[in-house]
Amino acid sequence: MSDDYGSEFDYEGRTRACRSALRDAGADCLVLLPGPNLQYLTGFRDEPSERHFLLFVPREGEPILLAPTMYDEQLSETWLSDVRLWDDHEDPRDRLDAIVFEIDPDRVLVDDRMWARFTQDLRAATDAEFGLASEVLADLRIRKDDAEIDAIERASALADRVSEEIRTLGEEAIDVTERDLAREIDSQLASAGGEEPAFETIVASGPNGARPHHRRSSREIEAGDPVVLDFGTRVDGYPSDQTRTVVFGAEPRSAKESSDEPRSGEPPAGFEDVHDVVREAQRAAIDRIEPGVPAEAVDAAAREVIERAGYGEAFTHRTGHGVGCEVHEPPYLVAGNSRELEPGMVFSVEPGIYLEGEFGVRIEDLVCVTDDGARRLNGSSRGWR
Amino acid sequence: MSDDYGSEFDYEGRTRACRSALRDAGADCLVLLPGPNLQYLTGFRDEPSERHFLLFVPREGEPILLAPTMYDEQLSETWLSDVRLWDDHEDPRDRLDAIVFEIDPDRVLVDDRMWARFTQDLRAATDAEFGLASEVLADLRIRKDDAEIDAIERASALADRVSEEIRTLGEEAIDVTERDLAREIDSQLASAGGEEPAFETIVASGPNGARPHHRRSSREIEAGDPVVLDFGTRVDGYPSDQTRTVVFGAEPRSAKESSDEPRSGEPPAGFEDVHDVVREAQRAAIDRIEPGVPAEAVDAAAREVIERAGYGEAFTHRTGHGVGCEVHEPPYLVAGNSRELEPGMVFSVEPGIYLEGEFGVRIEDLVCVTDDGARRLNGSSRGWR
Repeated sequence: MSDDYGSEFDYEGRTRACRSALRDAGADCLVLLPGPNLQYLTGFRDEPSERHFLLFVPREGEPILLAPTMYDEQLSETWLSDVRLWDDHEDPRDRLDAIVFEIDPDRVLVDDRMWARFTQDLRAATDAEFGLASEVLADLRIRKDDAEIDAIERASALADRVSEEIRTLGEEAIDVTERDLAREIDSQLASAGGEEPAFETIVASGPNGARPHHRRSSREIEAGDPVVLDFGTRVDGYPSDQTRTVVFGAEPRSAKESSDEPRSGEPPAGFEDVHDVVREAQRAAIDRIEPGVPAEAVDAAAREVIERAGYGEAFTHRTGHGVGCEVHEPPYLVAGNSRELEPGMVFSVEPGIYLEGEFGVRIEDLVCVTDDGARRLNGSSRGWR
Repeated sequence: MSDDYGSEFDYEGRTRACRSALRDAGADCLVLLPGPNLQYLTGFRDEPSERHFLLFVPREGEPILLAPTMYDEQLSETWLSDVRLWDDHEDPRDRLDAIVFEIDPDRVLVDDRMWARFTQDLRAATDAEFGLASEVLADLRIRKDDAEIDAIERASALADRVSEEIRTLGEEAIDVTERDLAREIDSQLASAGGEEPAFETIVASGPNGARPHHRRSSREIEAGDPVVLDFGTRVDGYPSDQTRTVVFGAEPRSAKESSDEPRSGEPPAGFEDVHDVVREAQRAAIDRIEPGVPAEAVDAAAREVIERAGYGEAFTHRTGHGVGCEVHEPPYLVAGNSRELEPGMVFSVEPGIYLEGEFGVRIEDLVCVTDDGARRLNGSSRGWR
């Protein structure tokens, strides 16, 4: 399992920075559950479960981990030294109470994703004031160091290779269900060395593409369907995220064919224009990126292109989201977010146009803010053929 | 997507029962986020995300859903009529405040998995007292109706078929990494019609098997390794969950070979005995099940067999957990849980023995409590060959 705890990441340094931020915030202790924050400080990755698994990071002293005994061996591979295990037949709240008593906090910051049932136990153990962990962790996590960018870049390169591979399916993708194509993508991502899908692979064909968060269904892909392919994988725990909208099996129209003549396998009327608009919107957004520019300006740049083309109402979501331990994290590229971009920020740029009952188009790449602009982390073809 | 909202489930009836339980509990409103509780009342399934997606179930009147605009089309297929959408450029907390003002609760029960960041917004909107949704939902969800049992049974049958198929790999599984074998299992589950893995498929070979929650690694399976295979899939949103511990490629010892002679492909010394003990413990636990028996008695029955064989310390987890919208939910078969079993409860029975540095054995089936005993929902072979 040593491959799951990438030693290239400086977990102890991150924890020191976190303790210093706790002091600045006037808070005494952070309490995290399995998830992106805990991954950031320890490398340990798992889903939260019904069993109490809580990391206490006090302002002074070593972090204390309360965890089920069954995780003993896995945890021995993290840098944590104070691990307090509880067995299934014990009540973990006794241990929790003892730890809170030991730290004796006046102000506790709980994981933004902390489950209410665990917060309830913490509140029962102390009269401290409660806040959210993002108060100290958001600013640390928003700028990626070289090791993080490198991991995201390797994940992106891997997904790009799969994207190119899937595109070559051509007519073989016709009559395949969205579910089966998603399965093929997942399988190729794993074969290529991805640790796990970064999120549930989206294959949204024809009218399903008009739903930005459609996942996949048993609908069979038809010739001429625009198909939104949105997927990612993880490398060293860090995710990729990219989207292409393609039409399988469409051959370029030969010169002698009349362009009025409908052909099987041709995308629907208007699709090519819409695809061009989205691609142009993405370019405009990326061109706008440089340190000091507010996040919302990048959103505005994409939106302006789409509005000018008359599709403003059909671009129903923000232009992008940060990517790190989480696939969606700050900074968000959205109207109202005046946060200034900084070198080391990594986020998606993914404008889309969704025409209900017809089709959808989305094109997405990850970019990294550099000292004087932006660098795309994805290099696969953005065309629709 | 209509296949994702199984119409065989009576969501409106469940919601009526929930409102009646709210009255009994002296609470005014339930607030849920995407997850098992929301699935139970609407059929809608998704992961929680950073976007506000909250279902308010007031004691009187219709449920109100606050959701991002991008889910508009998906939500139109649920039974919910009062859906209030917010766009990415809006602040969802304004809508949240308005809904809480409308309901004006004195006591609010939030999803047990509610993220702290959403609870914080709810607390900012009202001075109401806060509790957990399980106070009313746990008792409704713990007994499964016929449609639920049927879905779990179909998911189990499907996973059983894959279990039998994987077992036949024999020597083909030697030198395959745990990760690749897990991928093969996932692929077969999907081909067989499973909607998605019910949890991350566990392939724990050789010494990795001694970690009950080891997921999978790049370790290659060796001849003679005991391999713990723990996986499940979903059908109509309901999961299966079963475990077998097998040795790939081990041939029965022929009569003329000396039993002292070590053979390549033979499991490690003591393995067969341990496997027998675990199987016997599982049988003893299942024999103990009938309505009125406390959940902890089933745990004790399994534990007694394992302790008698001298492996008490090596059985480090509870004997089982309920299965429904969640893969782990009440009732838990664990010391200290005096909850009496009732017809319609569905749970796992999964004793295990974990010998650090050597191997692990776990055998798991789902069972349904009947009027006078228990019915196994899994029928695949439990042997290790």
